[in-house]
Amino acid sequence: MDTRPIGVFDSGLGGLTAVRQLMRQLPGEDIIYFGDTGRVPYGVRSAETIQRYVRQDIHFLLQFHIKAIMIACNTADAIAREAVAGDYPVPIYGVTGAAGRAAVHASKNGKIGLIATPATVDSGIFKKIIGALQPRAQVMSVACPLLVPLVENGRVARGDMVIETVIAEYLKPLRDWGCDTLVLGCTHYPLLSAPIAAYMGTDVTLIDSGREAAQTVAAQLADSALLNAPEHLGKTKFYVSDSPAGFEKLASLFLQRPVEGAVEQINIEAY
Amino acid sequence: MDTRPIGVFDSGLGGLTAVRQLMRQLPGEDIIYFGDTGRVPYGVRSAETIQRYVRQDIHFLLQFHIKAIMIACNTADAIAREAVAGDYPVPIYGVTGAAGRAAVHASKNGKIGLIATPATVDSGIFKKIIGALQPRAQVMSVACPLLVPLVENGRVARGDMVIETVIAEYLKPLRDWGCDTLVLGCTHYPLLSAPIAAYMGTDVTLIDSGREAAQTVAAQLADSALLNAPEHLGKTKFYVSDSPAGFEKLASLFLQRPVEGAVEQINIEAY
Repeated sequence: MDTRPIGVFDSGLGGLTAVRQLMRQLPGEDIIYFGDTGRVPYGVRSAETIQRYVRQDIHFLLQFHIKAIMIACNTADAIAREAVAGDYPVPIYGVTGAAGRAAVHASKNGKIGLIATPATVDSGIFKKIIGALQPRAQVMSVACPLLVPLVENGRVARGDMVIETVIAEYLKPLRDWGCDTLVLGCTHYPLLSAPIAAYMGTDVTLIDSGREAAQTVAAQLADSALLNAPEHLGKTKFYVSDSPAGFEKLASLFLQRPVEGAVEQINIEAY
Repeated sequence: MDTRPIGVFDSGLGGLTAVRQLMRQLPGEDIIYFGDTGRVPYGVRSAETIQRYVRQDIHFLLQFHIKAIMIACNTADAIAREAVAGDYPVPIYGVTGAAGRAAVHASKNGKIGLIATPATVDSGIFKKIIGALQPRAQVMSVACPLLVPLVENGRVARGDMVIETVIAEYLKPLRDWGCDTLVLGCTHYPLLSAPIAAYMGTDVTLIDSGREAAQTVAAQLADSALLNAPEHLGKTKFYVSDSPAGFEKLASLFLQRPVEGAVEQINIEAY
């Protein structure tokens, strides 16, 4: 038994879809969440900048005597995890590995689509992960730079002409190609599951990277006897790098429950 | 005569529409441009964060022995200029004052529309500027958080369903209200002049804050005998806080000419 919290960070709000899955799968765990809302989005920035930001995010979380870190941002995971993980004393889990494995298991025709930020697509990480597990699988990747700002503006509903037009533009080559599995390679995208599923059709399996990663974290903590006492009622504490006002407004949409407790603003550049 | 350069900064690319106007109106001036592409956008962040960023942007420019600074970002100008300008040894010009004055001159029916980032609208700066000049003028403001990411993704053309839908949503209350003047209160928005003019109709005057501010800077430097020699051929040097690769790609769209010379990346957090 290990009562220490799990640290989770993301470039902003997207990681809350992964936190929601952690809360569901590990209700006994305390979670410290950091959303880098002062520097969101990460997915359009250079690798060097993203790595610097990720190190600061990790340094901040390490203060809380955490037992593990989950990088709940596909961009940060893709660009920085491999480069930085060995430098820290706790296990650092990402979202891309779990999503890649789930896609390989789900696909029957070996055609796997990926939508993600430009930085994640450019990293090639999903092709690498999927290729290592199933060399015959093919991956078609589409960078979707507008989906994060659209989601952060609450444009997520079916029938919204703007999000439906943008989704159709990004997904048309994937639908035409005939993938049977589509990796939502950004933790913002589960909010768009309904319009994406409607466009792609019911035969295409959508992979939620946060959900898959939460399962992996749950299994690994259980294997290592690092879970909290089952009777403990887990709490989540939220930190952000910009005004908490802006955070709380949208966070409940991502979490699908109200944000409890005070959200604190920190100066991430000091870490 | 004063051979020192003019410093210009913005949260990212938008300020280049103001640089373009400076180049046209003051072809003899050297310009140092800093685009904070590692932390763009400013317009959705808190006042405290924006003020911290603006001080760092000014500290960076002051290294270049500049004779004046132009804040080519309505958000930074609205939120931070008054608070910080007195602390520095060079005159600091904004874009909001010039745009507010131009709107008052242009409006016949006293109904002035404003579109800007959420932070600029929340600051109330345009109501303050316009009210001081013309107390009977009315101002209706609409925050347009999606326009900056759409412009930065090149969605600027008439006939683009996404930009036209978003523009129609944001501008409908202003058109229904009957403003005869519309302040483009963000230096990204001149790129959208064509679809905005098409939606608002030919009777509505659009105010380009960068163009108005460039005129003010030109007049004030001339009055103070701070202009460079008229035979000097002005050069512009560009600095950014994220990868220059991403910057150059779009910068030529904003400048309406190719970016000449190397674009250099700097670590703005060190200032």
